[in-house]
Amino acid sequence: MTTSPRFAELSVGKRTILTPGPVEVDPRVLRALTTPILGQFDPEFTALMNETSRMIQGVFRTANPKALPVDGTSRAGLEAALTAVVRPGDKVLVPIFGRFGHLLVEICQRLDAVVETMEVEWGTVFDPTVIARAVREKRPQVLALVHGETSTGRVQPFTGLGDACRDVGALFVVDAVATLAGVPFETDEWKVDVAIAGAQKCLSVPAGIAPVTWNDRADARITARHRIERGLRTAADVDSDLPPIRSNYLDLAQLSDYWSPARLNHHTEATSMLYALREGLRLVLEEGLEERWKRHRLHEAALVAGLKALGLEFFGDPASKLAVVTCVKIPQGIDGDAVRAFLLDQFGVEIASSFGPLKGKIWRIATMGYSASRFNVLHGLGALEATLIRFGVKVPAGDALQAALAVYSDQAKLASTKG
Amino acid sequence: MTTSPRFAELSVGKRTILTPGPVEVDPRVLRALTTPILGQFDPEFTALMNETSRMIQGVFRTANPKALPVDGTSRAGLEAALTAVVRPGDKVLVPIFGRFGHLLVEICQRLDAVVETMEVEWGTVFDPTVIARAVREKRPQVLALVHGETSTGRVQPFTGLGDACRDVGALFVVDAVATLAGVPFETDEWKVDVAIAGAQKCLSVPAGIAPVTWNDRADARITARHRIERGLRTAADVDSDLPPIRSNYLDLAQLSDYWSPARLNHHTEATSMLYALREGLRLVLEEGLEERWKRHRLHEAALVAGLKALGLEFFGDPASKLAVVTCVKIPQGIDGDAVRAFLLDQFGVEIASSFGPLKGKIWRIATMGYSASRFNVLHGLGALEATLIRFGVKVPAGDALQAALAVYSDQAKLASTKG
Repeated sequence: MTTSPRFAELSVGKRTILTPGPVEVDPRVLRALTTPILGQFDPEFTALMNETSRMIQGVFRTANPKALPVDGTSRAGLEAALTAVVRPGDKVLVPIFGRFGHLLVEICQRLDAVVETMEVEWGTVFDPTVIARAVREKRPQVLALVHGETSTGRVQPFTGLGDACRDVGALFVVDAVATLAGVPFETDEWKVDVAIAGAQKCLSVPAGIAPVTWNDRADARITARHRIERGLRTAADVDSDLPPIRSNYLDLAQLSDYWSPARLNHHTEATSMLYALREGLRLVLEEGLEERWKRHRLHEAALVAGLKALGLEFFGDPASKLAVVTCVKIPQGIDGDAVRAFLLDQFGVEIASSFGPLKGKIWRIATMGYSASRFNVLHGLGALEATLIRFGVKVPAGDALQAALAVYSDQAKLASTKG
Repeated sequence: MTTSPRFAELSVGKRTILTPGPVEVDPRVLRALTTPILGQFDPEFTALMNETSRMIQGVFRTANPKALPVDGTSRAGLEAALTAVVRPGDKVLVPIFGRFGHLLVEICQRLDAVVETMEVEWGTVFDPTVIARAVREKRPQVLALVHGETSTGRVQPFTGLGDACRDVGALFVVDAVATLAGVPFETDEWKVDVAIAGAQKCLSVPAGIAPVTWNDRADARITARHRIERGLRTAADVDSDLPPIRSNYLDLAQLSDYWSPARLNHHTEATSMLYALREGLRLVLEEGLEERWKRHRLHEAALVAGLKALGLEFFGDPASKLAVVTCVKIPQGIDGDAVRAFLLDQFGVEIASSFGPLKGKIWRIATMGYSASRFNVLHGLGALEATLIRFGVKVPAGDALQAALAVYSDQAKLASTKG
């Protein structure tokens, strides 16, 4: 074996992140990550787990006793949720309005579900009555739906969907990865049966942990396949006749045992990420959800004003715009990726491209969580203006920042009048 | 919605962790966790991913190009590896000598494999020629084997197993979760086809990220089921006729694309945990693997001397003792869990119980990674002696620490003679 090369100390450049994740993280959350390790069954640690569970309930606006994080990124949360409620042969209805609808299909197909899809053009969303009608006609076991599509910057209205699912005995499973803690999300009021969030978007926690909650309707279906694993089970543990949940790691029934007072051993909870999630959730609850939604709208307004002043054209149906992701069309004749690389190299500003039919056509500029700030919007707009000029795009120099500053100053006046 | 309760600032007690994980983490690794977030396709971040991959090769002692972390705890790594190489109906041979052999069975059964097991009494290991013979007779597609069993404190010799697997075309999949970076592990020399490690044991990184490596033999089997996911695939992407890898999140073929120069989008890499893993691996390589194994043996020797002086009886076959986990029998008439609780409450010292047939019978005291230190061994032994006296066990007061100190001073003399 040859001698290993020496690796340099970890060192990273300064960044302003305006992508839909991973977004910047509050220094208080980063600090929480440095908390020394506790054992997974240390009473101090299990108390932190219990608190985190209550915080997850608070942020999802739910009374569900089942509220815990999956130790993986958002798609681990999505897969855990779907693996738990979808059985081979089940009919799953997936309305698709962007890339992440396709991901739900992909996961369900690998679970050997019979997946029925319906699609609208990227940049639009469904009339919810159309989805509700499809649920009543097709009578699936599961309706799996994305709430906010970061790929297109759209948010899907949910009116009537919870009721339609209950009418036919379907479970309503929602990908709230992009929306939780950024725009209104009401798990209980909207009759969402299973909801999954991501850490690295509006919660502003590093990627790698995914809060999930589910209600009694979903729990009945999950518990029916509950199975204690070999090495822990006793002669008294009887299995159901149903096929087991296919994943051991992503098995919500076992995770539920581990997070219950029984604390049945499963994986080793990701200690430091749990600390970070707890701190991130604490900051959300301290700010208050309504205040946080308002903050996201304010920075969206400033960003939109600035982009409009730059003369950029917005992508997608305005009625369904997701507040935390703003999509603009790449000006004719401009290499979108070259602009992004220049922004990153020269200004340390990161914006995103998109996928599939939108690849090379739009830029996505997100204002999520800790990245939804005056600092980021102003620095991002200034950098974008200078870069566009550099690339030969005709823009009214100076207007973008004035337009954004005007939004902030109007808001400040409004706030002082109210006060 | 009622107002959310206020949650206190994160604050934890001081601990000396002597369990087989999660173990203590070097402050330098905790500090790495506070590094600001970089975007997942930021060239600075992808450079860190590439470096981490090379470091994983170094620690596994392999030239495999495939070396990357799964974003989940060790069992996510195990499940990813098995899900990638085991197809429904495949024969998998699992020799079991403790709890984690059962976990491998559990995972493979959920994958609809035909699992054949062989078992020895907990506290012993297999004569490797017995396993090699079974491989040649049963001709499985996969031999899945634990290297170090933390549940019993044993390490399985591998002599001849790689060859036996190659002779019958089987893949040799090894759970090195407890052993990597603590005791010798030679991926290439031992002809291990797939090896999986954990972060929270001898690597001393927080739980939540699992390094995995696989060679060309395994890659051929994995790549045969390679499939680009919906939303990313183009008309040119053709699937094989084989059933797809069942998990999307834990799909090593897709993870491989994401970690390749193509950087095909999959999940969002767990930014902060990647920083921590990179720093943890860097510290391992800086210390040097041989030095690190020697350090683990030294602290084991001191611990064993101290426990012997306390009059405690060791559990298990001495020939197969795992250096990083020392198991002792709980003295007759003593409530093992009450002793552990007292140790934690009064001294902040954490030791472990065990599972299944060993529950209530043994204590497991581990010296892994950053927890394998003079500080931990001496503080742990002192606390254990005082606790045993408190619980009415007759122990020769004072002898344990003198015995451990003698080991350290002999070693110091030896080192100075050598110098």
